[in-house]
Amino acid sequence: MSLIQFQQHRELDLIGVGRLCIDLNANEINRPMELTRTFTKYVGGSPANITIALSKLGKKTGFIGRIADDQHGRFIMNYLQECGVDTSNVVKDLSGSVTGLVFTEIKSPEECSILMYRDNVADLKLEPGDVSEAYIKRAKAILISGTALAKSPSREAVFIALEYARKHDVVVIFDIDYRPRTWVSLAEVGAYCRLVAEKSDIILGGREEFDLLEDLAGQARDDRETANMWFEHRAKIVLVKHGGAGSTAFTRDGQVLKGVTYKANVVKTFGAGDSFAGAFIYGLMNGLSVEESQRLGAASASIVVSSHSSSDAMPTIEKIQALIQSAN
Amino acid sequence: MSLIQFQQHRELDLIGVGRLCIDLNANEINRPMELTRTFTKYVGGSPANITIALSKLGKKTGFIGRIADDQHGRFIMNYLQECGVDTSNVVKDLSGSVTGLVFTEIKSPEECSILMYRDNVADLKLEPGDVSEAYIKRAKAILISGTALAKSPSREAVFIALEYARKHDVVVIFDIDYRPRTWVSLAEVGAYCRLVAEKSDIILGGREEFDLLEDLAGQARDDRETANMWFEHRAKIVLVKHGGAGSTAFTRDGQVLKGVTYKANVVKTFGAGDSFAGAFIYGLMNGLSVEESQRLGAASASIVVSSHSSSDAMPTIEKIQALIQSAN
Amino acid sequence: MSLIQFQQHRELDLIGVGRLCIDLNANEINRPMELTRTFTKYVGGSPANITIALSKLGKKTGFIGRIADDQHGRFIMNYLQECGVDTSNVVKDLSGSVTGLVFTEIKSPEECSILMYRDNVADLKLEPGDVSEAYIKRAKAILISGTALAKSPSREAVFIALEYARKHDVVVIFDIDYRPRTWVSLAEVGAYCRLVAEKSDIILGGREEFDLLEDLAGQARDDRETANMWFEHRAKIVLVKHGGAGSTAFTRDGQVLKGVTYKANVVKTFGAGDSFAGAFIYGLMNGLSVEESQRLGAASASIVVSSHSSSDAMPTIEKIQALIQSAN
Amino acid sequence: MSLIQFQQHRELDLIGVGRLCIDLNANEINRPMELTRTFTKYVGGSPANITIALSKLGKKTGFIGRIADDQHGRFIMNYLQECGVDTSNVVKDLSGSVTGLVFTEIKSPEECSILMYRDNVADLKLEPGDVSEAYIKRAKAILISGTALAKSPSREAVFIALEYARKHDVVVIFDIDYRPRTWVSLAEVGAYCRLVAEKSDIILGGREEFDLLEDLAGQARDDRETANMWFEHRAKIVLVKHGGAGSTAFTRDGQVLKGVTYKANVVKTFGAGDSFAGAFIYGLMNGLSVEESQRLGAASASIVVSSHSSSDAMPTIEKIQALIQSAN
Repeated sequence: MSLIQFQQHRELDLIGVGRLCIDLNANEINRPMELTRTFTKYVGGSPANITIALSKLGKKTGFIGRIADDQHGRFIMNYLQECGVDTSNVVKDLSGSVTGLVFTEIKSPEECSILMYRDNVADLKLEPGDVSEAYIKRAKAILISGTALAKSPSREAVFIALEYARKHDVVVIFDIDYRPRTWVSLAEVGAYCRLVAEKSDIILGGREEFDLLEDLAGQARDDRETANMWFEHRAKIVLVKHGGAGSTAFTRDGQVLKGVTYKANVVKTFGAGDSFAGAFIYGLMNGLSVEESQRLGAASASIVVSSHSSSDAMPTIEKIQALIQSAN
Repeated sequence: MSLIQFQQHRELDLIGVGRLCIDLNANEINRPMELTRTFTKYVGGSPANITIALSKLGKKTGFIGRIADDQHGRFIMNYLQECGVDTSNVVKDLSGSVTGLVFTEIKSPEECSILMYRDNVADLKLEPGDVSEAYIKRAKAILISGTALAKSPSREAVFIALEYARKHDVVVIFDIDYRPRTWVSLAEVGAYCRLVAEKSDIILGGREEFDLLEDLAGQARDDRETANMWFEHRAKIVLVKHGGAGSTAFTRDGQVLKGVTYKANVVKTFGAGDSFAGAFIYGLMNGLSVEESQRLGAASASIVVSSHSSSDAMPTIEKIQALIQSAN
Repeated sequence: MSLIQFQQHRELDLIGVGRLCIDLNANEINRPMELTRTFTKYVGGSPANITIALSKLGKKTGFIGRIADDQHGRFIMNYLQECGVDTSNVVKDLSGSVTGLVFTEIKSPEECSILMYRDNVADLKLEPGDVSEAYIKRAKAILISGTALAKSPSREAVFIALEYARKHDVVVIFDIDYRPRTWVSLAEVGAYCRLVAEKSDIILGGREEFDLLEDLAGQARDDRETANMWFEHRAKIVLVKHGGAGSTAFTRDGQVLKGVTYKANVVKTFGAGDSFAGAFIYGLMNGLSVEESQRLGAASASIVVSSHSSSDAMPTIEKIQALIQSAN
Repeated sequence: MSLIQFQQHRELDLIGVGRLCIDLNANEINRPMELTRTFTKYVGGSPANITIALSKLGKKTGFIGRIADDQHGRFIMNYLQECGVDTSNVVKDLSGSVTGLVFTEIKSPEECSILMYRDNVADLKLEPGDVSEAYIKRAKAILISGTALAKSPSREAVFIALEYARKHDVVVIFDIDYRPRTWVSLAEVGAYCRLVAEKSDIILGGREEFDLLEDLAGQARDDRETANMWFEHRAKIVLVKHGGAGSTAFTRDGQVLKGVTYKANVVKTFGAGDSFAGAFIYGLMNGLSVEESQRLGAASASIVVSSHSSSDAMPTIEKIQALIQSAN
């Protein structure tokens, strides 16, 4: 029997919840951003990227989120629709909010940083009333991003979405996706991410992100302890990402799976996590083993870090498989 | 075996968490407040009242909360100490906050209302760092009041306290204590109170308060359904208060106990719930049955509604027993 | 020719602008507030007190302000009407604001302090749209209190009122009335109070209050320099209050008038400034000399500091004159 | 005798005060911004542009403002220094603010719009303590932009700068520069811009901007009335801009000067006002007549609207004169 039980008859494979924003990627790279004069615009935001990745891999996807009532908001809406993401539950925010921005700075392939605009952003205006129980129960899985927990009313909207998902056996995938800029305090990060993690089936995060959730008692934890902690709640798979060193997946039935990595002609490190997550979830949904799913994720990440964007560069399954075969 | 397992060797019987405020009770009553010229000052706030009630009943109690750095804050601190409540974990807030106020208006015994001052109040400034794991594990039970969930950082502090309590087998008593003035939206009330209720052993609330927690799906609920809903989580006792009509207690092991009420020479209805809760918890802690505990609660409530204050009027066990005997 | 030209044909003698609040005066006095158990409620707020003082002295007065939509707000409305103040331009605020409070602590006649509630108060919600040009031009004078400048939108409403007053030759009386609690920074106090003082005919304040307005260049000033500074703008009378030591009035035509003081059986110092201002303005309006007006002010102050309240104790002209005669 | 008396011995010709931000100009133009994929970065903000214009025209300039502590802030600082603007009074804001952004959309030369990011921006964090009296008295003129009045503490900082300027005979130039996004209400716009305009020597604005300042009484005004209104205060020159139809200058000594316009190969309309203002002020400072100064302004504007940027395209005096000659 499979580790994760997706309700196979459901119409939508995955609904992303939360952040929809704009990446402004430096065109002149390998220098500090002060010396960059032009930027290229892409759709961004971790749950947007993962949902787009799955859509490009052929899955039926939808999104629950808010966009600003401006040119950037319309650009996001158009792009999601072009990618085949169902936007019937994407709400235009009329409160005078703006679209979240991420300027990327690529000093070198190893030294990348971002400059975020997160004040008064539309995505954090998501309201409980925007979350439709009928919509969620049409899905096999929902993907919750930790950034959506950073502020009210988005935070409460996520808890409502989580309740609907649990009530209707929708698999809950939690990507911690910690972004310091949006949060008021580390205590809030811990408190709310823990409450979501306790109710999630699959938890994805970096080592430092898991530490944020677990610093309750202050002691250092290793990946094994982390996994055990969440297996005491509902988690079936806990995947700890270690950047270039690959990921380690722990499963409730006792497996420990060290993921492979693929060589890449690295342009920047942005988008690695989202592309991994997209292909990994694709694998699980298609009944592949956790190990095989990690392989798809690693291949997808190696393709995305070699290109200029995150969302736009999300590969097809053919491209992923080609890379895996050429690597063998 | 008892329904609720209190760790008998613990030093403190109960720690209250949350609201410490001032009641300004109308001296000239049976009229609208516009015609009242003088007010008498008492310590107030539901968790303060319940903690004081238990202290007056001979229990060892403590409190986790914040008070303003002013004359009202010092009055609260002094009063708690006079009542024997341990204040080692009551923090003086230095942010320029004020003490929450409640002006009471008594138009008639049946027509009572309040005027609350809840802007920038010290009690909602409680921070996660104020909550000591070492202190909580010294207690048999903690009492969490829903009003402490209304705002950050108090909200996160409560979730931290809750985690410590669960980790160390401290019985969690949740008094919904809904106060509209403090909350931003009903969606927040529902989302956060549900998250606490799911982790609580004993839940106390009025019918309307339980409805607030359960309106997720919109359908009307009766007390039986309410109780069952929380028994699916950790609750052992769910007590639904119906004002003058008494309370109904449901227990995880299937009991349904309609509480008695005692006649009272009612001055005002304020304080009825808190005095009931104090004596009810006292009963459970002393190994009495749920039914006997309800009786103590009802007697205590009848004493408090016959007097001018809430905190000051909390009775001794002798006074409660005398009332019960005289009523037989 | 008189120093100040009041438009004699105008219907209203004075319109107060700004703060309407509640004083809760300690009944048990000569002790710290922690030991006070009961409080008596009065209407308070400097412009309210001055307007009430003039009304009790027989002048026709009105008020421009906002009150909370609660029992305290209704109490204020009723009291103003009982005093004969026209309340047609007092607006009920529907934003969920509260009535400002001042708890008074009387440790000894010399050691008095206050505890203010100024968060989310109705009086600071006064909006530019609440200020009627037609109403202002019906008055001989308006009285602006510095506390109304502490926050938007009340601050802008005051600037609008000021423009209407200047446009229609309404005498502008500015009472600096500095209350630290309401302001964000001293820089704001200085910037906005200076802008109002530049356009005022009569400026009233304590030595420390004038210093706040003038610390631009940092140098210490004496009363003479202060007066000269404002005479360069529009001021005709600058009155510097020195508490128990009396006041000094400077006039644009070169007079320097050291005011008398009257012995009093002092209960508390609150209300001294407002009662002085009320009777002083009364004198000027009735064509008395500045010196005679100061004498009325001093007598009124000595009556008010001998009683328990501020607004309620404002004396009639007969009472003031009786005191002056008995002192001779 | 000249209309405006500049203190000729002063070291700095002009100090700009207020907004320093980033323009992100669409590279793919003549389309809605949704279809633009790349943007080029420039320094922007009206007072920045005007100060840069004067610097490029050979004047000694400085700036009083705040920049964010990030890559965009450093880019602005570097650019100002490259242009020769003295940045000794430009303060790095450490509060976590961001750099204001303006995305420009060029649908057609006639249909241009902007998308502003003005939440939590560094320029509005300018504090009174950032404004140095010693620095201001080193200048012949200061340029105040209305956008700096939109929020505290920047608003108070401007009033302080204004007082220092008046105290030391520094010519005050006020550019209304109304930007709806930053302001809370039209009442605030009117109230604060009027207070600055009353103390200014030269006032520049569009017809709609002057209307905002004057809607006190509600009646429609024409340029003549507008000018007269401000001549009652301190204004010597009132310049009303009418977009492509040119400007009309009114002088206190009775001149009415309809400015010329020059044909341009218009790319976009942004920057027209700022380039006009820069060259116009340059003319006045060099002792040219108002009419000749308007001509320089018009020529400069025609150069800037023909190019892609605002700040970067500010022309030298040679380029301006060449255009004027070629047009004759």
